[in-house]
Amino acid sequence: MEKFNPVDHPHRRYNPLSDQWVLVSPHRAKRPWQGAQEATSTETLPTHDPDCFLCPGNTRVTGDKNPDYTGTYVFTNDFAALMTDTPEAPQSGDLLMRCESARGTSRVICFSPDHSKTLPELSLEALEEVVRTWQQQTAELGQNYPWVQVFENKGAAMGCSNPHPHGQVWANSFLPNEASREDTLQRDWYAKQGSPMLVDYCARELADGSRTVVDTEHWLAVVPWWAAWPFETLLLPKAPVQRLVDLNGSQRKDLALALKKLTSRYDNLFNCSFPYSMGWHGAPFNGEDNAHWQLHAHFYPPLLRSATVRKFMVGYEMLAETQRDLTAEQAAERLRSVSDVHFRHTGA
Amino acid sequence: MEKFNPVDHPHRRYNPLSDQWVLVSPHRAKRPWQGAQEATSTETLPTHDPDCFLCPGNTRVTGDKNPDYTGTYVFTNDFAALMTDTPEAPQSGDLLMRCESARGTSRVICFSPDHSKTLPELSLEALEEVVRTWQQQTAELGQNYPWVQVFENKGAAMGCSNPHPHGQVWANSFLPNEASREDTLQRDWYAKQGSPMLVDYCARELADGSRTVVDTEHWLAVVPWWAAWPFETLLLPKAPVQRLVDLNGSQRKDLALALKKLTSRYDNLFNCSFPYSMGWHGAPFNGEDNAHWQLHAHFYPPLLRSATVRKFMVGYEMLAETQRDLTAEQAAERLRSVSDVHFRHTGA
Ligand SMILES: O=P(O)(O)O[C@H]1O[C@H](CO)[C@@H](O)[C@H](O)[C@H]1O
Ligand SMILES: O=P(O)(O)O[C@H]1O[C@H](CO)[C@@H](O)[C@H](O)[C@H]1O
Repeated sequence: MEKFNPVDHPHRRYNPLSDQWVLVSPHRAKRPWQGAQEATSTETLPTHDPDCFLCPGNTRVTGDKNPDYTGTYVFTNDFAALMTDTPEAPQSGDLLMRCESARGTSRVICFSPDHSKTLPELSLEALEEVVRTWQQQTAELGQNYPWVQVFENKGAAMGCSNPHPHGQVWANSFLPNEASREDTLQRDWYAKQGSPMLVDYCARELADGSRTVVDTEHWLAVVPWWAAWPFETLLLPKAPVQRLVDLNGSQRKDLALALKKLTSRYDNLFNCSFPYSMGWHGAPFNGEDNAHWQLHAHFYPPLLRSATVRKFMVGYEMLAETQRDLTAEQAAERLRSVSDVHFRHTGA
Repeated sequence: MEKFNPVDHPHRRYNPLSDQWVLVSPHRAKRPWQGAQEATSTETLPTHDPDCFLCPGNTRVTGDKNPDYTGTYVFTNDFAALMTDTPEAPQSGDLLMRCESARGTSRVICFSPDHSKTLPELSLEALEEVVRTWQQQTAELGQNYPWVQVFENKGAAMGCSNPHPHGQVWANSFLPNEASREDTLQRDWYAKQGSPMLVDYCARELADGSRTVVDTEHWLAVVPWWAAWPFETLLLPKAPVQRLVDLNGSQRKDLALALKKLTSRYDNLFNCSFPYSMGWHGAPFNGEDNAHWQLHAHFYPPLLRSATVRKFMVGYEMLAETQRDLTAEQAAERLRSVSDVHFRHTGA
């Protein structure tokens, strides 16, 4: 009888961080594509756009004026999904129609005054400044909220309405779904194994290497064993770290390098500004013992075959299970095969 | 102190069928939109397209020729994500890198020979034929597979590569994530409450009415209390039914009517062919007692504000929690305010 081979045979892989399976159908990469094409922006952007509501000195929809900032710049989202002062919802024993009020805030983080740049095109110093801003925001908001979600939506394909380099930070009075699930699963692992799940996982990936994309002094980026999106990556510190705020100076400095290399590889894969959503997960600010937590970032990029053909998580995926068309090892191999120096990088 | 009001105040609602929360931010509908616009197809399609690989009599990529079918037509997907004969993956005690082989098949279901039609534009007789085909496929594949996923991806926004009216059916040798979660949660509910969760829920919604979109003799479509997508609906039989195959003649006939009304309301909302992914969940074919199961269909449409502005489930949603900009009641009210007769319907 034929032997099972993960490169030829459909199989499922298990994500221990989310308790979800993913269906891997590597033979399916051969099917022709006749569906929707993404728009690619090849236009060169100006360094300052008078119509951009994030550029220094410009006026936003609300009438507020941005300062002439030179590094990063943070302000409260003019259309925040959360409010700081939502009244409590009345208690109810209703099991079918449960509701609770939600408090929080949401802020925009401009990564650079330069409208034309994206993360991989920023200098290492500017990238370190971005990391420092993430740390400051997390520290500040963590004083009042158990969960602080730092993230970036990049590219029109990911619902990003403005190319100016920026991310967001949302603070929550509750542990959102993903946080709560990771908290439970990491806690269970720690109770059984005696070490944090992602510290164990990092060691396994370092020893293996087949899913490695970027490997710096303090950081490792892999296409995780259980990746859902075609070129999804997980960015992990090599040492145990619970939160962004716990990074020391050399881990922070090296994170700037790891981010530059990872996002450059992404852009180089299809010679485009690679869309993605990325964000950080770290121990909640809930006053509990969080020894089971390990800081990490998820990168979820939608592209599958080219700058214009994405993976659609629809139909079967929404109703049954995430499905992917190439193995994690194949995706990592593709990302390793391109340079970690950005294709638009010139000189110096 | 101000009183909590779900129309003004951010809150979370709980989905007992998936054990997930959704963040509702109703005040956010006011924010301006500068992001990506979906393409709308306003072109009138021919009833037969010589280049379409689903039209009767045409030849597919593989060289196979479609028969001159007149009703529905089913064939095995030429690029199926699953194979019937995958060898077993070796057993391993690895907790971090778990893998199992997956078997199954995937078929395409053409709803009509007419290339230019979509579900709401089919006659009630043709719609009943679609339901009958779903039943036949489920019955046949259920003999060999515990899970049979019937679904439709409609529109380019949902990764559909061909406008010819069609859906799919994927059979699985395993219970996929969503099925497994619904199975567990319905089982727990039944054990505690003594009746199926969705039978209880249907009764609540019938008594309430504020989330009702379509109400026929045997079927109820609501924007569920916990809806994630802006105009998501849940379609439920009013009587206990475990699977598609268990529908009697009058339930089937009435389902054709409910589908026609629901999809017509969708199209009428923004005067376009409303994209969505939809699919059926019913008791698995696993030989177990499935008294806790109630058949239902989920409709997940991406549009938010118009035919060209969709909701992006990105960033915060992927990393933390699904967020929506209008309440389920507001969405239902909008869908009720348009006609249940399709805007392209003429005469008869
Ligand atoms: O099978 P199709 O129509 O080629 O492909 C579409 O539906 C599949 C099942 O939902 C998805 O996996 C694909 O991403 C999507 O493009
Ligand atoms: O906040 P923005 O950039 O206006 O909006 C974008 O990100 C949000 C957070 O991920 C999402 O809820 C929106 O659907 C998306 O369009």
